[in-house]
Order: sequence, then structure tokens, then C-alpha cells
Amino acid sequence: MPKKIVAFGEVMMRLQVPGYELLTQANTLQYSFSGTGVNLASAMTKFGHDGYLVTKLPDNPLGDAAISFLQRLGIRRDFIAREGKYIGMYFLENGYGQRSSRVTYTNRLESTFNTSDVSDYDVDLIAENADVIHFCGIALAMTDKVRESMKILAKRVKEKGGIVCFDCNYRPSLWDGGYKQAKPHYEDMLSLADIVMMNEKDALYILGMETDKTSRREQLEDLIPKVAEKYNIQTIAGTHRRVNSDNTHSLQGYMYKNGEFTFSANTTFSVYDRIGAGDAYTSGILHGELSDFSPKETVQFAATAGMLACSVVGDTPMSTEAEVLSAMRGTTEDIKR
Amino acid sequence: MPKKIVAFGEVMMRLQVPGYELLTQANTLQYSFSGTGVNLASAMTKFGHDGYLVTKLPDNPLGDAAISFLQRLGIRRDFIAREGKYIGMYFLENGYGQRSSRVTYTNRLESTFNTSDVSDYDVDLIAENADVIHFCGIALAMTDKVRESMKILAKRVKEKGGIVCFDCNYRPSLWDGGYKQAKPHYEDMLSLADIVMMNEKDALYILGMETDKTSRREQLEDLIPKVAEKYNIQTIAGTHRRVNSDNTHSLQGYMYKNGEFTFSANTTFSVYDRIGAGDAYTSGILHGELSDFSPKETVQFAATAGMLACSVVGDTPMSTEAEVLSAMRGTTEDIKR
Amino acid sequence: MPKKIVAFGEVMMRLQVPGYELLTQANTLQYSFSGTGVNLASAMTKFGHDGYLVTKLPDNPLGDAAISFLQRLGIRRDFIAREGKYIGMYFLENGYGQRSSRVTYTNRLESTFNTSDVSDYDVDLIAENADVIHFCGIALAMTDKVRESMKILAKRVKEKGGIVCFDCNYRPSLWDGGYKQAKPHYEDMLSLADIVMMNEKDALYILGMETDKTSRREQLEDLIPKVAEKYNIQTIAGTHRRVNSDNTHSLQGYMYKNGEFTFSANTTFSVYDRIGAGDAYTSGILHGELSDFSPKETVQFAATAGMLACSVVGDTPMSTEAEVLSAMRGTTEDIKR
Amino acid sequence: MPKKIVAFGEVMMRLQVPGYELLTQANTLQYSFSGTGVNLASAMTKFGHDGYLVTKLPDNPLGDAAISFLQRLGIRRDFIAREGKYIGMYFLENGYGQRSSRVTYTNRLESTFNTSDVSDYDVDLIAENADVIHFCGIALAMTDKVRESMKILAKRVKEKGGIVCFDCNYRPSLWDGGYKQAKPHYEDMLSLADIVMMNEKDALYILGMETDKTSRREQLEDLIPKVAEKYNIQTIAGTHRRVNSDNTHSLQGYMYKNGEFTFSANTTFSVYDRIGAGDAYTSGILHGELSDFSPKETVQFAATAGMLACSVVGDTPMSTEAEVLSAMRGTTEDIKR
Amino acid sequence: MPKKIVAFGEVMMRLQVPGYELLTQANTLQYSFSGTGVNLASAMTKFGHDGYLVTKLPDNPLGDAAISFLQRLGIRRDFIAREGKYIGMYFLENGYGQRSSRVTYTNRLESTFNTSDVSDYDVDLIAENADVIHFCGIALAMTDKVRESMKILAKRVKEKGGIVCFDCNYRPSLWDGGYKQAKPHYEDMLSLADIVMMNEKDALYILGMETDKTSRREQLEDLIPKVAEKYNIQTIAGTHRRVNSDNTHSLQGYMYKNGEFTFSANTTFSVYDRIGAGDAYTSGILHGELSDFSPKETVQFAATAGMLACSVVGDTPMSTEAEVLSAMRGTTEDIKR
Amino acid sequence: MPKKIVAFGEVMMRLQVPGYELLTQANTLQYSFSGTGVNLASAMTKFGHDGYLVTKLPDNPLGDAAISFLQRLGIRRDFIAREGKYIGMYFLENGYGQRSSRVTYTNRLESTFNTSDVSDYDVDLIAENADVIHFCGIALAMTDKVRESMKILAKRVKEKGGIVCFDCNYRPSLWDGGYKQAKPHYEDMLSLADIVMMNEKDALYILGMETDKTSRREQLEDLIPKVAEKYNIQTIAGTHRRVNSDNTHSLQGYMYKNGEFTFSANTTFSVYDRIGAGDAYTSGILHGELSDFSPKETVQFAATAGMLACSVVGDTPMSTEAEVLSAMRGTTEDIKR
Repeated sequence: MPKKIVAFGEVMMRLQVPGYELLTQANTLQYSFSGTGVNLASAMTKFGHDGYLVTKLPDNPLGDAAISFLQRLGIRRDFIAREGKYIGMYFLENGYGQRSSRVTYTNRLESTFNTSDVSDYDVDLIAENADVIHFCGIALAMTDKVRESMKILAKRVKEKGGIVCFDCNYRPSLWDGGYKQAKPHYEDMLSLADIVMMNEKDALYILGMETDKTSRREQLEDLIPKVAEKYNIQTIAGTHRRVNSDNTHSLQGYMYKNGEFTFSANTTFSVYDRIGAGDAYTSGILHGELSDFSPKETVQFAATAGMLACSVVGDTPMSTEAEVLSAMRGTTEDIKR
Repeated sequence: MPKKIVAFGEVMMRLQVPGYELLTQANTLQYSFSGTGVNLASAMTKFGHDGYLVTKLPDNPLGDAAISFLQRLGIRRDFIAREGKYIGMYFLENGYGQRSSRVTYTNRLESTFNTSDVSDYDVDLIAENADVIHFCGIALAMTDKVRESMKILAKRVKEKGGIVCFDCNYRPSLWDGGYKQAKPHYEDMLSLADIVMMNEKDALYILGMETDKTSRREQLEDLIPKVAEKYNIQTIAGTHRRVNSDNTHSLQGYMYKNGEFTFSANTTFSVYDRIGAGDAYTSGILHGELSDFSPKETVQFAATAGMLACSVVGDTPMSTEAEVLSAMRGTTEDIKR
Repeated sequence: MPKKIVAFGEVMMRLQVPGYELLTQANTLQYSFSGTGVNLASAMTKFGHDGYLVTKLPDNPLGDAAISFLQRLGIRRDFIAREGKYIGMYFLENGYGQRSSRVTYTNRLESTFNTSDVSDYDVDLIAENADVIHFCGIALAMTDKVRESMKILAKRVKEKGGIVCFDCNYRPSLWDGGYKQAKPHYEDMLSLADIVMMNEKDALYILGMETDKTSRREQLEDLIPKVAEKYNIQTIAGTHRRVNSDNTHSLQGYMYKNGEFTFSANTTFSVYDRIGAGDAYTSGILHGELSDFSPKETVQFAATAGMLACSVVGDTPMSTEAEVLSAMRGTTEDIKR
Repeated sequence: MPKKIVAFGEVMMRLQVPGYELLTQANTLQYSFSGTGVNLASAMTKFGHDGYLVTKLPDNPLGDAAISFLQRLGIRRDFIAREGKYIGMYFLENGYGQRSSRVTYTNRLESTFNTSDVSDYDVDLIAENADVIHFCGIALAMTDKVRESMKILAKRVKEKGGIVCFDCNYRPSLWDGGYKQAKPHYEDMLSLADIVMMNEKDALYILGMETDKTSRREQLEDLIPKVAEKYNIQTIAGTHRRVNSDNTHSLQGYMYKNGEFTFSANTTFSVYDRIGAGDAYTSGILHGELSDFSPKETVQFAATAGMLACSVVGDTPMSTEAEVLSAMRGTTEDIKR
Repeated sequence: MPKKIVAFGEVMMRLQVPGYELLTQANTLQYSFSGTGVNLASAMTKFGHDGYLVTKLPDNPLGDAAISFLQRLGIRRDFIAREGKYIGMYFLENGYGQRSSRVTYTNRLESTFNTSDVSDYDVDLIAENADVIHFCGIALAMTDKVRESMKILAKRVKEKGGIVCFDCNYRPSLWDGGYKQAKPHYEDMLSLADIVMMNEKDALYILGMETDKTSRREQLEDLIPKVAEKYNIQTIAGTHRRVNSDNTHSLQGYMYKNGEFTFSANTTFSVYDRIGAGDAYTSGILHGELSDFSPKETVQFAATAGMLACSVVGDTPMSTEAEVLSAMRGTTEDIKR
Repeated sequence: MPKKIVAFGEVMMRLQVPGYELLTQANTLQYSFSGTGVNLASAMTKFGHDGYLVTKLPDNPLGDAAISFLQRLGIRRDFIAREGKYIGMYFLENGYGQRSSRVTYTNRLESTFNTSDVSDYDVDLIAENADVIHFCGIALAMTDKVRESMKILAKRVKEKGGIVCFDCNYRPSLWDGGYKQAKPHYEDMLSLADIVMMNEKDALYILGMETDKTSRREQLEDLIPKVAEKYNIQTIAGTHRRVNSDNTHSLQGYMYKNGEFTFSANTTFSVYDRIGAGDAYTSGILHGELSDFSPKETVQFAATAGMLACSVVGDTPMSTEAEVLSAMRGTTEDIKR
């Protein structure tokens, strides 16, 4: 049965130079709208749920275009506030080989979303309707107002019986005060969360935990159970990911639940657009949990969803449940006729 | 000396999403016109022959566009009937990595071609002019009327001394009745054909033949001579093809003639657009046979033509005889100045 | 207060050659999805209502793309059935000056929608929810099954207290049996309708009514009251439209209600894409009626909405209530900064 | 019954900046291939004849692209010589309003065509097959070799009973020696021609004839009969054309035959691409003459063909006989469904 | 002899939806960089001078792209400061007919330029080199820092013997405090200026002057001499412009100098992109003054430059002196071959 | 401190079919302007120097477009002569896999540049300003006039104390008379040069030197010191490059100076557009020499610049000094945020 999945987060306009030209060489841009919340709500919609976004968008043609884009993905506009003037934007120049991709931001912190406060959102209505609410560490890095909105929303949804999901998603460039500034906010969110996306690095660096293990896998198996216990988290999941020299990526997912670790196969695959793979993985975990998949099925479903998200144009995962299941079964055909 | 090569078959409109977007993401399509007959007639034209198509196209702007496209390839319009309203179409979304390409058809069986009958074609004129006529298993899967046209044309060309070429090209999704429905029609065409494109799988599954060999190569060497004998076929040729994990393909061609097998080198190559490679291989075999190449030359020429067809945009082979010969000599330069 | 506006009708895929090239000259197409129902539901959504479409779409990537397009416009997918394989399509080549635009259809009558029957739709749910349901003469021209669905839906919505709106929209090429075949079906719909879009030509030709007046205006004023009385219709509205030699159009709207005619100003304007102007006019009438505008306001609002729809790319009206009101006030600025 | 129409002339590559940008602003070009001969052969093919081109093209990818383009238009490649390295090219920047279009040529006189001589062409074969051969004053302005080829071809076709058509088409910028250099060559061609395209200005300036009339119409009626008599020309035809200030053009055609003038209506129309209208007019005259139209029909058909050529993208007329006849009947509809 | 023309002003990124789609319909944008200073420096460069821009741009890929764009126009980068993060941007949706164009700005006041102060610019170097320096009322409306930079630069250039040009260019939406806030700053600039662009409305509204005349022409002739006297301005020039209903514009320029008015012809012309016409007019006045044209020639040259700027894609005038002179002579040809 | 780097050479227009289509399949081209001199001047500008080009361009819109393109790259136009009519052009069709790229030239030898002579250039001004002047073997292959200009410019710059750099860059197809014709001209340039780009093959084939070594490395180490001695060259540098079967390239650079060889690491990398890598390498050597890098730093900087040039769209290197240094440090990130 479809659930109501609510994601909280900023919608940004992505302005991408087509192909491999630089901004100094080209004269056209492709635009779309994205963000962790968008990716999550879209992915859950493709899996058969009703995806909602809690965000605030300017009341002008750019805000209209964002709404149209979200609706195209099937995301519902019911919880989107409209007011203000600015949408966050970033320009993307694709790298090639040894040349890195480049991202250039506009005044993000002054965007309509990042200057919004909790009174912009109908918290009661959201809390009554959300089966799941999702937050991410990127929004947590923004402004005090945004952080306050996150914590209030999480609390209220939890009180009403909804599941709170939090993706740590730590971005060093967004925290002027570094781990020290971030830690108390992360602890607040972890204490409120039922499902958390993270791995051993988050435990080590954000939470400042310690381990005498040296391999990533051992560190993970040592630290994650401690995190789960300390913050009383039902399910923790995440991935280990590696960029290979031949432009492929390798990904292995894990889930920790009821005191047990489950790991997906470690798969290697070609990458068209890497942004959004983490959100697809999160969506897979959520869908598995909501659908009573076994842990093995859930983690494999999530890893496959993450892999497929890398094969799709744009940030936003586009695969249906059927497509993920088909790819899990490994029945990749050359052309589907 | 150039020969008159006549190919019988449907012309379909191919509507392709550019790049790697899905139909739900994009808003433009590239269109072209293709089909096994188109590919064959075009390839033979590039090899210096006069390519003709026997087909029927609607008498409307879509039919006009198809004709223009065929003419651009150098194919002659003399044997193309015009009447009716519908052209078969398919939409193509390109896959990437683990994500398969997807093909979506429109009402194909009701197309002008698939509702045509033999009276639409000037059989006498065609039979008098064709040095070679080519048919394929895709058309054979369509409608009774199409099948009737094929058999009558094959018979009449044969009577007039033309060479009949038949490419088995079995497509499971097109035969509701499966191998059982297909077998008698395939047997009719095999009995009429001088040159046949097939491999051991066609013998095993369509014709229901048996072998106690297990490797593909041994099965081929066991079954193909029996097919040649049973249906009195002068030349049988085909390929073994493998899709490798790194997006390259491997291809080895064979030809059976005068009781002997000849094999091409087994080559591995990058693939831009895989559709049409089989038709390029067939064209290479035909051109070798018409040009009195040795079997070794013929089969290597055909395999190289197949490989080059994979490096070209669109379904239709575009390489000239000189270009195939140059690639056979392996003189691949980086840039031809 | 926003109303639930339900439109019944076919969604077609529009494949348009960009610019002024012919299909024989170009190699790309722009695609979108449209239809009278789409236009109406979209326009009403822009005016602040909730627009729904009752239609049936194939369960394949083309159907998915149609849904995405409708959602982008803000139309709700709740009443859309999914099943079957074919979507109606048309190709559009833009005319220029003396050269007419050309439309080429594919197998429309075999589309998923035109082979649907009433059991595909959740009539009860629709009837309970619709504040207004809209039908049009194009759908009425299609198949017996479609006609049956229309009449059942109209009856049930009416029983539940919803408003039934019917746009005569007679297209000669779609009725093999001409006016004679059409008349009984039109009479059925007129008897069920509360609001009807038509003008004097529909009364003369479809309904076979007679008048001794000669000017269009006098004929209108003579016949429309008789139609209203005979079929017991609350409101009848429509337009007189003229294509001028300098590529401008002139449009005057009228509304007949409570025994009185009201006319809009007769305005002349440049036209970018003329398709959809009639649906914008209908939407304006509906919005005026639902918003308790005076007849004068309603008819002027509708005429302005029709004019603005001609200034927009694509079939579908895109103007908000505020934009129509601003254009009514005539405050056209060169650039809005 | 279709005739074999042979046109002699250069094929040039047209490289056009899309839209209204300048070469200093843009970074893409659209390319096509055109020339008076191309336009004429294409137009006659659309009218149901078999169009051939006598020209010489380089034996390289640019020559291949030109051939493909000609074939797409339906023009036969049988009389096209291949050898040499250069194709004439011009760059076109579209003007707007008061800003003129600009044409920039590459080294035209050194092109494969302009350095060809009569031995490059199979004169016997051409003469045996041509029902009509067409020449134009642009080719006459090129090189001595080209002029020699023209005169030999004209003579031989005439001897074999074919019709020789010559379009004066004087371009001042192409004749270094002005009218004086041009006159003897024009006289040679006029003496060989059966059908000539010209107007009173050609008589006055190229041929140096005199008249005491002052209006263009009177000068035409005075001079053309004298030209016909002096050079023994069966039919002379041409147009008077005016560019109006509102971006429309006005055109009136005439034909002089058997001692009588016939004039078309003077029509005014919007212009998308004015190049090629004269060739369309010539094609209309030829088609009328070959089809035994009355002079009135012929001249109106030709003027309508010229008008429609201005509504089409690119140099080359694309209208069929049916489309010209329909436009003559004035049945311009908004959209053809 | 070429002069060094220095323009002070903001460079903005213009992000334009191609064609006539809305941001909610499209998915690509064309980008360029513009501003009054850019337009002026570019236009003067095309007239043979050396154009410089005094501005500040972010030190990131967007700033790099802006520099590249300016250099492409021939503008020198010597006086451009680099630092900071944000460039002002605006999105442009083209209107059609009755539908207005729409401009949506991003956070302009926080741009690198609008937060720059005079220490960012090498005032001495600029003052020593500038033959002319140009300012505009748009920059004056921005921030105190920008206003301060303007006044200091104007003073220093004047001291060194350079000509100071000021274009009033009042934009109501940019002055929160309206005319009252603007007046003292305008007076400062007028007192420093040698050449001023304005018309009677600026005198009436910004400067609060009074007149008992009623027609625009009479008001102009009454007020401008008073302005010249009061602020001791050598030359005042400007235009009267009218948008006509048929999408053409009419423009008449004037210049007041040495106590005398000179007027250009009043011309009407088609408009492709109206932005930048005023800057082209200013450039024409400056060029005329620097080249010792007679007042009659100067004002006609300027008006023609303004007209041609409307025929060009983008904000920035692209016509050379020769092209303006040719258009003044009225020798508009259809195509320049 | 920035140096004035002057490059002598032809600017050609590059007309490239987008993607992988052939000229016979496509209808659009992308254009840019390039050449060894362009690449070198642009690369040095990106490294912080002032790049100038000594060339001659036609005085028409194609020449204007070339100038705009060069300015966009930051190259100064001060030493560019304008006159004449033709610019050299080449058409580029991209290869794929086994299918080679194809280049088709227009009449290059008759271009404005290749018919220029030394009087077109202000040799004194150039010689007084150039810190470095760069020549290449492609220009040397053109015409006697070009060769004369090269030698005079080299001599005069040397006399004034500038550094002369010569890149051997031997292209067999450009020398009708082969090595024999080339040798004396190469010897003239080598005798004038301070810095020379070459490897052992140039010594063996152009200069006809002999060695009994067999490996490339040993031949290099045997021959280059002899060349340096014989022609009195301060620094010789170059690369060994290999195209690998998986579409990667491998490159190792060397520099010989003060009697010692220094080699860069041998790196393997993906290639987007291989043209221009050699010019980037040369620019790296020049920049290292001008910046007093150690030989080790210089050669590694140059090799990295060469590698990055292969990751960029178009011929022209676009990397800044900072970007090359960052890539040298190997800090390749996936996305730069």
C-alpha cells in the first residue's frame, strides 16, 4: 500500500553546460531543479508512494518553473510554501578524464528557502499526513532558521507516529565551524531519527567516536552498533563507494538493524551522472522497510537503485520498482523490444 | 560491375530521444527511417551496386519524408508503392550501462506495408530486373499478406535467374505462435533461397533439428551442412556475436559453401549503435559473392562491414567498399587528413 | 474557492517539426501532449482550480511521458486509467504565409482512449468529486464506446449536482456520416448540459434549425435562445472569429444567459499558435460562472484568455487569472521588469 | 507523361547562421546545397518529372554530402561527374528589418565545377536523354570552360530535338567586364534557346536595345517581341517583382508566345526565404509548356509556384503540382487536418 | 583617430529562454553578458575606438565567462577588477503580441560589482587614459559605494581633461525612495558631466522642473536649455520613442548644443530586440562629437545606430561605422552579395 | 611577470559535424577558429602572459568572426593584418572506434594568410615587443612568401633580443617534395631558434641524420644532443606519444638543455579532443623556461598541460597555470564544489 513520504529540503536550480564545454566556451545551459529532498520524493513516487516536498519557493517565474518540474516528477505541491524572491542556483561544468567537474554557486544562503522559518510550513497538517519524513545534513548546514524547522518538524511527525529518516550527508564546505559546529545539531537529529543514513566516517569525524580498527569494514562494524545504541536508532544504513580509474564506480551497501549487519553485493558499473545515487540508495532502504522486504532484499534493492540512478540523466532517480527488481535479477538485455 | 539489388521489407520511422534522457524527461526526438531492407539496399549502394526497395508507403507527408530519406541514402524509389495512411513507428530511448535501451512500437500490423498484398507490387518488372532479391524473417513474422508477397516474389525472381537471399532473423516477440507457427514459413523461404543467413540456433529452434554437440561452434559445424543439403541452399553464412561487459562487442563470421566452412577473425570493438550490424554483414557476404571474392575474403569483408556499421550513427550502414577494405587492412589512423 | 474541474477526453501526442521546415527537410521533432480536455484542465488549474482529466493512457513509456507532461501542467492523475498500447499521435508541419500548416494523424481510432469503455473509469468516484465536468464534440465523434462513456458520465455527474459543460466543437472530417450521424448524439449531450459552447452555425447545420436572418450576428440572436429553450440549457456561449490577411485574428465572444446576450469587445491580435484558443475561451466562461463574475466580466475575461492563448507556445493555455485580468485592463507593457 | 529535365549548373554549399545572429555571435551553421540548376531540377521533380543535374562535384566527403542532398530532393545522379577537390561555398547571415542579409563567398572560381570542361560530361548520353535542358546566366558568368560546356551542350541537345531553356539571370558582381563582356555570350545562348527567361532590363542593358517607352510594362511590351524575333525564340517569360516596405513582396509574371503577351495576377505575399523564387517561376513555365496548359494557366501556375517558393525554408522549391494548383484556386486553409 | 572610451557599470548575466516558451515550458537557456557599460564600450569599439570597461567581476568561472564574452566584443579587460563571488543575473522570457516579456532578477544588490568600492579601481590609471568616461543612471540607483565610485571617477577624469558622459536612464523600480532620493545624486552627476543623455521627462520628474507647455516637443525645447545652463552642460541629447501597435517602433533623436536644437528624421522600423537601442544612440552621439560630425550628421548617425541596434540579436550594438553610414544613406538592399 | 608571447601562423576555420554523424547524414556544423599559433597564444594567455598573433585575415564577416573568436580567448589583435578574401577552412567528421575521423580541406594555399608577404606585417613593431616568437613547421610547408616572412621575423626578433621558438611539426601531406624539399627550410629555422620542439624522428627523416640505436629512447638520446650542437640550440623538447587500443593515450615529455635530458612521468589518460595537445606541451615548456622552473618542473608541467588539453572541447588549450599545477599534484576530485 502506498505511503505518504514527505521530504524536507531546498530546491535548487541546476544550470548545466551541455556536453563538455566550459562556461567560457558555450552559450547555452540546460536547467533543471533538484536537491536531496526532490530526489527522495521523486524516487519514492516512482516506487509507488505519494511523494511530498516541504520547501519554500519564490513567488515568481523561477518558482513556477521549479513547481512545474517537481510536478512533472509526480511530486505533490501541497506542502510547498510560496513567497520571497530568490532560488538557490548552481552552475555545473562537466569534467572529462583528468579534468574535474566544476560547480559554481550563487547566493545560496539568501534564498527563499534558507531564509524561511517554521511558520512558513503547516506543521500540523504535515505531521498528520506523513508516514515518513526525510531530512538531510545539507539542509542542517544552512541557517539557524532551517535547523529549527527541521527539528520541530521531526519532533511533530514522530509524535504523530510517523517515521523520521535522517541522512547525515556531511559537506565540509558548508560548515564554517567544521565538525565542532555540526556535532550538536547532528546529535539532535540522530536522537529524533528512526532510520539513519551514515557510515563509519560520520561516526569518527562528526560524532568524534573512536575505534582501534583500521579497515573501513571493521570500523563500520565496530562503530555503527554503538551509534544505534547511543541515539536509539532502529535502522542505520549506508554505502561504501569507490571511484575507479576507468570511470566506473564500485558500490556496496549495508544495513544494520536488530543488532545485525546485512551487506549487498559489491558491484561495479559505468556512471553517467553520479549525483543522486545516495538519495536513490536511501529511497531503496525506505521502500524495503515500508514493504517488509527482508534485510537482504532491502539492501540489495537499495544498492541496485543507487547503481541505476548513475545511469540516468540529471540528479533525480527515475527507476520504478519493477525496473530495480528487474536489474536485481540481472536480466540486462541489450535492447528492450 | 554493379548489380541490381532488390530488398523487400517494411520501412519504419525511428523516433529517438537524443542522448540518454527518457521520454518522460525530454521534449525533442530525432527521426529517421529504417528497416532490414533499407539497411541492405543502402549498404549495397555504398558498395557500388544499385539498391532498390520493394515496399509500400503511405501517400502523405510521412511517406514523402520516408522516400526522401531513402533517396538520400541512394536507394531507388522505382519499386515503392504509395497508398494508404500509416507507417510503422518505434520510439527508442537509449540505455546506459546497466540501464537497457527501450523500444516502444505503434500499431505496426496495421501499417500500409503490413496491410499490403502482392498486387501492390509490379512483380514482373521486379523479377526481370533483380540480380538479387533479399528477404528477412522480420517481414515473415508480420501478416499472411506479407508472407504471400514474399513467397511469390522469391519464386518469380528465382525463375528469372535472380539470386534469392533470405536472412532468418527470428524475433520471438513477433510470432504469437512461436517456433511452431514460424517453421513452415521458414521452410518455404529456405527452399526458395540461394543464400541464407542463419546460425545453429535457427536450426535447433526454428527447424527443430537435433545435435549431440554442446559448443556453439561444434553445433554450427554439425547442423549447417544438414540445412544446406535438406533445403538445397548454395551458401549459408552468419555470425557469432557476444556483448562484453565493457560495452565492446565481439564478432566472428562464418560462411558455408561447397561443403566447406570459412571463418573470419574474431574481433572485438566499441559500439556506437548496434542496430544494422547484421544487415551490414549480410551485405558483405552478398558483395563478396557477387564480386568473386574468395570465401576467406568474403567472410572477412562481411565481418569488417558489420564492425564498421556499429561505429556509425543510425541503423543504416554507411561504409563504402574502399572503407571496408581499408579497415580490413587494419590501417586505422587517428585522423584522416 | 477552488473547484474540482474534471475534463473528459483524449490525450494525443503532438509531434511538431521545429520552425518552418517540412518533414522531408528536417530530422528533429518537438513533442508535447494535448487535447481539448488537457487544455481545459490546464487552463482551469492556472485559474486556481484543481484540474482533473478522465482519460485512458497506455501503460508504456509513451503513456508515462504523457502523464509527466500533464503533471507538469498541474493536472491531477487520479482519474486517469492506464492500460493498452497505443496513444493517438499527430505530426504538425507549420505553414508560412500562403503555405498552410499540415497535420498528419496516426491510427487514432485504435488508440487506448478510443477503444476504452465506461468500465475503465471509476464513474462513482468521479461523480462524487466533480464540481464541473467538461466534454467536447471531438470525443463525441470517435467511437460508440467513447460516446457511451460520455453520456453515462454526464448523467451521473448531473445526478450528483455537478455542472455539465459541453463544447460542440464539430469537426466535419471526423464524422463519416456527417451532420445526420452527429445530430442525435449532439442532442443527447445538449439535453444533459448546463453550459454549452456553440454558435449559430452549430444550430443551423448540426441541429438543422432554420432562420430567415442573414448576418451571423442576427442568426446568432435568433437561434441561440431557441436552442437554450429546447434543450433546457442554462448558459450558452461562444465566439465569432476571423483570420485576417495580415496574420492577425479577430475575436468577439458572446454569452447568452437568463434570456440576455452579452458581447465582449471585438479585438484583433497577433497569433503565435492558434490551437487552444477556443478551450481558453471556454475556461474563461467557466471560471467567470464559478466566480460569480458579471456576464460582462465573464465574457471579456474569456475573450482575453482566448487571445492570450494565441500568444503562447503549444496548444495549452498558460495564463493565470492575474495575467488575464492584467491584460483585460490593457496595461500591456513592453517588458515586465 | 513525365519528361526528363536536365539542368546544367554549379552546386554550392550554403552555410547559414541560424536565426538572426551574425557570424561573430554564433557558433553553429546549418548547411545545405543549392544552385539554380538544383532548384530547377528539384522543382520539376516535385511536378512529376525526372530531374537530372549536369555538374561536377569533388570526390570527397563534401561532394558525397552534396550528392546525398540532391538525392534527397529526388534529383538523379546519373549525369554528375566526380573528381577534384573544391566545392563553391557561401556563408549567409540573415538580415532583419533595416539590417541587410550578408553573403560571403569562398574561392568560387577555383571550384571543381568552375574548372571543369566539356570532356567531363557525357554529352552524347545527355543529348539523347534530355527532353529539356536548362542553363542560366550565373554559370555563363563563370569561366571560359564553363561557357564552352554550356554552348556545346545546348547545341547537341537542340540537334537531338530537346528543348533548350535559358534564364538570363544577369548578376553584375560576377562580370568583371560588365555588359560588354557578357553580351556576346548571352547572344550565343539566346540564339540556341527555345524558351528564355528575361525581362525588359535584360534587353536594355545586356543586349543594348533601345526604346522610347518609360514604364516597365510598356518597355517590356515593346522590347520582348523584338528579342523573340531577332534570336528566333519560341517563348519568353519572366516576372516583375517588388519588395514592399512591410517585408512582403509583390510579383507579376508574364509570358510572350505566338506574338501574344499573357500576364498573371499581381500578388502580394509574405516571404520566408526569397532565394529560389525565380527558379520556381521558370519551373512553372516549363511545366505548363510541357503539360499543354493554356498560356493563362501556365503563367498563373508559374507565378503561384514562385510565391510558394518564398514560403519554404531554403533555396529549393518544394511544392508539388497539386499544391500549386490548390494555392491557385486560393483555397488557403489555416491548418490542413 | 581612435579614442579611449571608458564605461563604468555592472556586467549582468542574461539568461534567456529561446523562442517564445516560458520558463515553466522550456529546459534550455541562452546566456550572454550585458549592461549599459558593455553596450557602450562595445558600440564605440565597433566605431573604431578602444572600448574599456570599469567594473568588478567575481573570480570564478562565471566571471571568466563574462570576461571572455566582453573580449569577444573587443572590449579591453585592463580596468576590470576580479574578486568576490556573485554576478548579477536576470532571466528573460520573451513576450509575444499582447503577452509581455518578463524579467526575473537574482540578488543583484549583493553582486560583486554592487558591493565594490572605489578602492577596487585604479582611479589614477583610468583618469590618465580615458578620453571619455561614461556613466548611467542604472548604476546610480544601486548602492552608496557604487555612487561614490561614480562621482570620484567622474571628478578625476574631468580633472585630467577627459570628457564625462552621463545617461540619466531613470528606472523607477530601482529607487525605493523615488525621485526624491534620486535627485541629489542626479544633480551631482549632471554638474560633472559634459555630455548628458536625457529628455524632458527627466527634467520634469527627476529634477522637478516646471513648464507650461503640453506637447513633448515643446516641453523639450523649453526645459533642456534650462538644464544645460543650470548644470553647465555642453551637449544634451536624447530620443523620443514610441511603440506602435504593429510591433514596429518609431524613434526621433535630438541634440542640444551651443544653444541650438538639431533633430533627426523620425523613423519607424521593425524590432528584433529592443534592449540596447538607447546605448547605441548614446554611442552615436559620442562618436559624432569625437569625429567632428556636424550636429545634423551626429544626430542622424545616432538615430540610425539606435535603429540598427534593434535589428540585432542580444543587448549589444554590433554595427560598424560603415554599416551605420550605409544605412543612413538608405541603401538597404535585400541581400548583400 | 607576464611576457609578450607572439605566435606566427595561419588561423583556420574549423567546421565540425556535431557528435558522430557524417557530413552526408547531418545538417548542422559547429565552427571555431584554430591553428598552432592560436593554440600557443591562447595557452600562454591562460598561463598569465599576453598572447599576440601575427597573421593576416580577410576583411569580411569571416575575418571578423575569427577576430572575435581570438579575442574571446584573450589573444590581442594588435599584430593581425586585415585584407583579402579567403580564410582556410577544414571540415571535421569525428570517428568512432575503428572508424577514423576525417578532415576535408578547402583551398588552403590561396587563403589570405598563405598569399600574404612580409610587407603585410609591421616587423619592427613586432620585433620590439616580442619577448618570445613562436613558429611551426605547418606554416613552413605553405608558400615561399610565408617561409620568407617566417625567416625575416625570426631574424629580427632574435636581433632585438627576443627568444625564437620553433616547433618542427612535420606534416608529410603538406610537402609535395617530401623531406628533400623541407630540409633546407628546417635548417634555416633551426639555426635561428633558441627553443625547438622535435623528437628523434625529425632528426632521422627531415635532417637525414643517422644512428645505430634501435629503440626510440636511445635514438632520442643519441641524436638530440647532436642537433643541439649543430644548430646551436639552447633547449630542445618534445614528446613520445602512443595511442592505446582502449581509446586512451600515453604521453611522456622530455627536455634537453645544458647537455642534460629530463623526462616527465609517462602518463595514460582519456582523450576528448586530441588536437592541440602538442601546442599545450610547447606552451608548458615555454612557460617553465620563462618562469625559471627547474627542468623537472618544466617538463612535468608541460606534459600535464598536454594531457589536460586532451580533456577540453576544441583545439585550443584552456587550462590556467593553477589548474595545471593542481593536476600535477594529482589532486583530482570528482566534482569541484
